[in-house]
Amino acid sequence: MSNKLRRQIRSVLLLLFVAISAPTARAQDSQDTTSNLHTATRQELDVIKVLLAQEDAWNRGDMEGFVRAYKDSPDILFISHQVNRGYAGLLDQYRRDYPSKAAMGNLSFSGLEVHPLDDRFAVCIGKYELDRSKKDGGHSEGLFSLILEKTDQGWKIVLDHTT
Amino acid sequence: MSNKLRRQIRSVLLLLFVAISAPTARAQDSQDTTSNLHTATRQELDVIKVLLAQEDAWNRGDMEGFVRAYKDSPDILFISHQVNRGYAGLLDQYRRDYPSKAAMGNLSFSGLEVHPLDDRFAVCIGKYELDRSKKDGGHSEGLFSLILEKTDQGWKIVLDHTT
Repeated sequence: MSNKLRRQIRSVLLLLFVAISAPTARAQDSQDTTSNLHTATRQELDVIKVLLAQEDAWNRGDMEGFVRAYKDSPDILFISHQVNRGYAGLLDQYRRDYPSKAAMGNLSFSGLEVHPLDDRFAVCIGKYELDRSKKDGGHSEGLFSLILEKTDQGWKIVLDHTT
Repeated sequence: MSNKLRRQIRSVLLLLFVAISAPTARAQDSQDTTSNLHTATRQELDVIKVLLAQEDAWNRGDMEGFVRAYKDSPDILFISHQVNRGYAGLLDQYRRDYPSKAAMGNLSFSGLEVHPLDDRFAVCIGKYELDRSKKDGGHSEGLFSLILEKTDQGWKIVLDHTT
């Protein structure tokens, strides 16, 4: 099966998952159910789309596209082994860490779950896997939790904790 | 210096840090500055207090007190090497993982930062250190990011990503 076809099938499965799991996420919200029913679902789909676009950009070798998922703000946070801050320098840092298409390898997200907080913020958790040959850095995988904010430029990541 | 005195000094330093850093956190908020000025500061202090109470409870060996910082909801998330869910069973799990006062060791938080999202949600990041003798599990430390929600029972953790 081609990578593109696999990605398309996964996208459809993810959207189905979100549609099915939406009532659980909505149950968290204590506000009026009727008005949240639509908002939460659109929010979840929109957030999932950001992640899928990020995965696609990475696998095209388009680091600029990947980084566009983050909010262009000095306040955004990246937590891994240490805490890093701010959008400025983010692209440079990614380019330093992944200097070639081979070093970028093939990224895939799985187990994506969107947990809306309110109209403006949502949490997305999931697992990433990076398939790479040993000489380019080797396979890596881990869990992440993201906080996304609905901005004028669409949903953007404001906190990324990846382990 | 006694542990209690050290904790009190740190509490004061933390509150000072929050007071000083509050303008930065507030700058994130695009709403009316005048009304947020007070809200954000109170929010930050209230969130810090939850963490300090958690640290104190742990170091008293009061696991129930520690766990009360979490929201009593099936939707809360704990991410470490895997994703765990829900308040039910949380106390049992902590008691299993830390069966005695010696196994609990001495917990200290540092580098606490509160980043308000809006009136109802805030992010808190920081570092934990657990001092324990080797036979009780040894020293451990790591970073965490928390999402807290303002509930009728006060600020409660709804997502805990600790690494």
